[in-house]
Amino acid sequence: MSDINFEKLRAIVGEANLLRDPADLYVYGSDSSVHEGMPQAVVRPMTVEQVQELLRYADGERIPVIPRGSGSGMCGQVVPVQGGIVLDMKGMNRILEINLQDGYCRVEPGVVDDDLNKALKPHGVFYPPTPASSMVATIGGELANNASGTRSVKYGAARDAILAMKVVLAGGELVSFGATTRVAASGYPLERLMVGSEGTLGVIVEAALRFVPIPRLRCLGIAMFNQLGEAGDAISDIMGSGCQPSMLELVDKIAITAANKAEKLGLPEVEAILLFEADGMAKETIDPEIEKFRAICERHNGFGFEFSYDEKERARIFAARSKLFPSLSKYDERLASTSLADDMAVPFSKMAETANKIHEIAERHGLVMTAYGHCGAGCMHTKILMDTEKGEHWEAAQRAVAEIYEYVRSVGGTTSAEHGIGLSKAAAFKREKASVLGLMRGIKKVFDPNNIMNPGKLMDGPEDWVGETHLRYQKS
Amino acid sequence: MSDINFEKLRAIVGEANLLRDPADLYVYGSDSSVHEGMPQAVVRPMTVEQVQELLRYADGERIPVIPRGSGSGMCGQVVPVQGGIVLDMKGMNRILEINLQDGYCRVEPGVVDDDLNKALKPHGVFYPPTPASSMVATIGGELANNASGTRSVKYGAARDAILAMKVVLAGGELVSFGATTRVAASGYPLERLMVGSEGTLGVIVEAALRFVPIPRLRCLGIAMFNQLGEAGDAISDIMGSGCQPSMLELVDKIAITAANKAEKLGLPEVEAILLFEADGMAKETIDPEIEKFRAICERHNGFGFEFSYDEKERARIFAARSKLFPSLSKYDERLASTSLADDMAVPFSKMAETANKIHEIAERHGLVMTAYGHCGAGCMHTKILMDTEKGEHWEAAQRAVAEIYEYVRSVGGTTSAEHGIGLSKAAAFKREKASVLGLMRGIKKVFDPNNIMNPGKLMDGPEDWVGETHLRYQKS
Repeated sequence: MSDINFEKLRAIVGEANLLRDPADLYVYGSDSSVHEGMPQAVVRPMTVEQVQELLRYADGERIPVIPRGSGSGMCGQVVPVQGGIVLDMKGMNRILEINLQDGYCRVEPGVVDDDLNKALKPHGVFYPPTPASSMVATIGGELANNASGTRSVKYGAARDAILAMKVVLAGGELVSFGATTRVAASGYPLERLMVGSEGTLGVIVEAALRFVPIPRLRCLGIAMFNQLGEAGDAISDIMGSGCQPSMLELVDKIAITAANKAEKLGLPEVEAILLFEADGMAKETIDPEIEKFRAICERHNGFGFEFSYDEKERARIFAARSKLFPSLSKYDERLASTSLADDMAVPFSKMAETANKIHEIAERHGLVMTAYGHCGAGCMHTKILMDTEKGEHWEAAQRAVAEIYEYVRSVGGTTSAEHGIGLSKAAAFKREKASVLGLMRGIKKVFDPNNIMNPGKLMDGPEDWVGETHLRYQKS
Repeated sequence: MSDINFEKLRAIVGEANLLRDPADLYVYGSDSSVHEGMPQAVVRPMTVEQVQELLRYADGERIPVIPRGSGSGMCGQVVPVQGGIVLDMKGMNRILEINLQDGYCRVEPGVVDDDLNKALKPHGVFYPPTPASSMVATIGGELANNASGTRSVKYGAARDAILAMKVVLAGGELVSFGATTRVAASGYPLERLMVGSEGTLGVIVEAALRFVPIPRLRCLGIAMFNQLGEAGDAISDIMGSGCQPSMLELVDKIAITAANKAEKLGLPEVEAILLFEADGMAKETIDPEIEKFRAICERHNGFGFEFSYDEKERARIFAARSKLFPSLSKYDERLASTSLADDMAVPFSKMAETANKIHEIAERHGLVMTAYGHCGAGCMHTKILMDTEKGEHWEAAQRAVAEIYEYVRSVGGTTSAEHGIGLSKAAAFKREKASVLGLMRGIKKVFDPNNIMNPGKLMDGPEDWVGETHLRYQKS
């Protein structure tokens, strides 16, 4: 651990924006993952100049710096594993410009996703790569993780929305990447390289983002299946048929059961539910999409088909999905819902097989796992429901996670769809990217020669994320 | 210049695929730019292994390697400025997979854009980032330059379509970037970093690309303007009004005059023409777009409004644009159409001002310049019509180009929209990206420590592109 000159930090951000009380530090030591660490200080910069001064100081003293948004990440990206200074970027939360004629907005990194969309709404446009945590997730954090969400199948991820970026590099230098034009072919796209870099290359202090018109109509359909495999075949056919859903979600039985239990939804406890949304400016383009969805589902023995354009009805139909995440902890009172193997991406045609495989692996290791996700984007989410006080459950979880990612790699998938790598997925990531870790480390060294930016993550993350890192749970 | 062991090259690719005759070398010394150079050898690899062997040899001997598609680039990207070996990638032209269910295709780099789209068409899908040169342009070249075209306003550029890539690095190592899933948040997106790298980071030997459904209907509208500024105001209003054109093109008077002269089109020689296309699956979403286009144009004194869904009629309406490029040489017999300041991107709201500025700068320097482009993507193209035998025209062109890009930077634009940087735009690029050239050079060094991959381009390109490089024209 480096010595930290708190006087220096106080001089840069002021007394009110420097935290060093152990209780405060503890809060900033964890995110929504299973991991925890302990920073030596937390600072809340309010200006670009403060970020520059902080990084100049930290780089000189070789002190780790961990930029952080709301800490809603699920893989430990912002957990300080080598002490250092957490930069809480939430104070830099101004929307600097909404430029309709030129088709972009400029924001500071601490702007919360929902706040941005509230500001855009009166102009008839929205920023689409919104994750489920959009109530708290900051744009800076979303960019650092290449976040996306239910509508990524149609609208893409954060990486598809970024136009330009201002970044403070480790030495304190402020640089600009990209341009606010719709297309650009001016050399290496450093603004895109930053998206997914998880705080390891620099601090994003401003971003220019694209937005798109809000569709006038949205229609949501639902179908149920007695076999996960049949739902999976329906997914492949939907995506292979030229359908253009704005959302295509898979929910498995474990998730349905949990949602029923927690929220008394009274959903039929079938093996799988598919949710399909089409959006657009006229019924004439949406109706045929919904009709295609129905026909394909029926061909694969789907039943219980319903659809609606009405907002309230859509919310009711969507309940199975929207209540899912908080419900999972109530599946079994003895089991906690942990973010392990929390997300992965596989080809569309492998979604159902992946869900089955996850259930099979979980069962073999004495764990309960659910499988759900944005299958229109090949994005699968799971949670491991486990007794976190049992050491053997952690060992089983670690083995299960390794097997799941081995399978994901074997079908041409990738370690993370939209949650990033952080600590929990580092081992799987390093296996997947084995041949290019040298390039990634080289790039990091170019941006951050003294390795102060969020060290010990991504390609430098732990192989043994149970043993080598701090867990937020007490093992007996 | 390095000594080249031709025996070695022959052993790798075979006699038939090694060119060393000066007449052959001369052909491979130029592209569609004003520049020319002379390679020491041209090889046509047919397999990934051959590319690996070639790069292993070249890296060991520090021989420059210039990967090349069809040479349709306009900025000198594939002109060998330090001798070396041109890798003609056109022989590796297999479409390896069209996977409808998983939503991607895999191709070798030498596949011609039109050939890919011909193969995709029976499946009801297309690869959208198609440039005007799609008859000859290869996918490898398009990726290396982040190519796009008339429909980028809706469908994006090559960088938006890339999913995964296989690349041979300078030392001969074969690596994989990205994944064939719709979304991925697995660390640094090296596959995107490659797009726009212009052959300086490695040789693309395979690419996995997204495609999209072919729209059932396309409707093209046209409007004319007596003032370029009025057309420009219409562009801003169209883009700021939530319109979603699949194409929005601006053509100026010089281009119209040239097209009339060359093709006897009989177009009214107005100051500006706007072309607007909307596409989709039903008239009900397209008609309102066309109506919005008409209303906005009329508000800005547009006239001569026409539109059609019919393919033949659309071709007739589009003639002003499609005949433009080959016509420009006929504007004035004494003047050649040269690709200088050939493309740039500016915010939508600056399109008309940029066109006016270009005309003003050209006139001040005694040159004729046209302005046209995909203004829905902020993409402006020009040609300089000049007497290439006159040294003073070259000097004037160089000054004009510098002024144009100074203006582009001042309005938040970028040096290249879709043609790339190469040699002609290197000086402007280096000014625009001054603060990040160090990062770009660092990244290049990580990928290519011995600087054999297309050296002397992009951030290492010439400041004085008239004096320091070979021109294909004889100055008196």
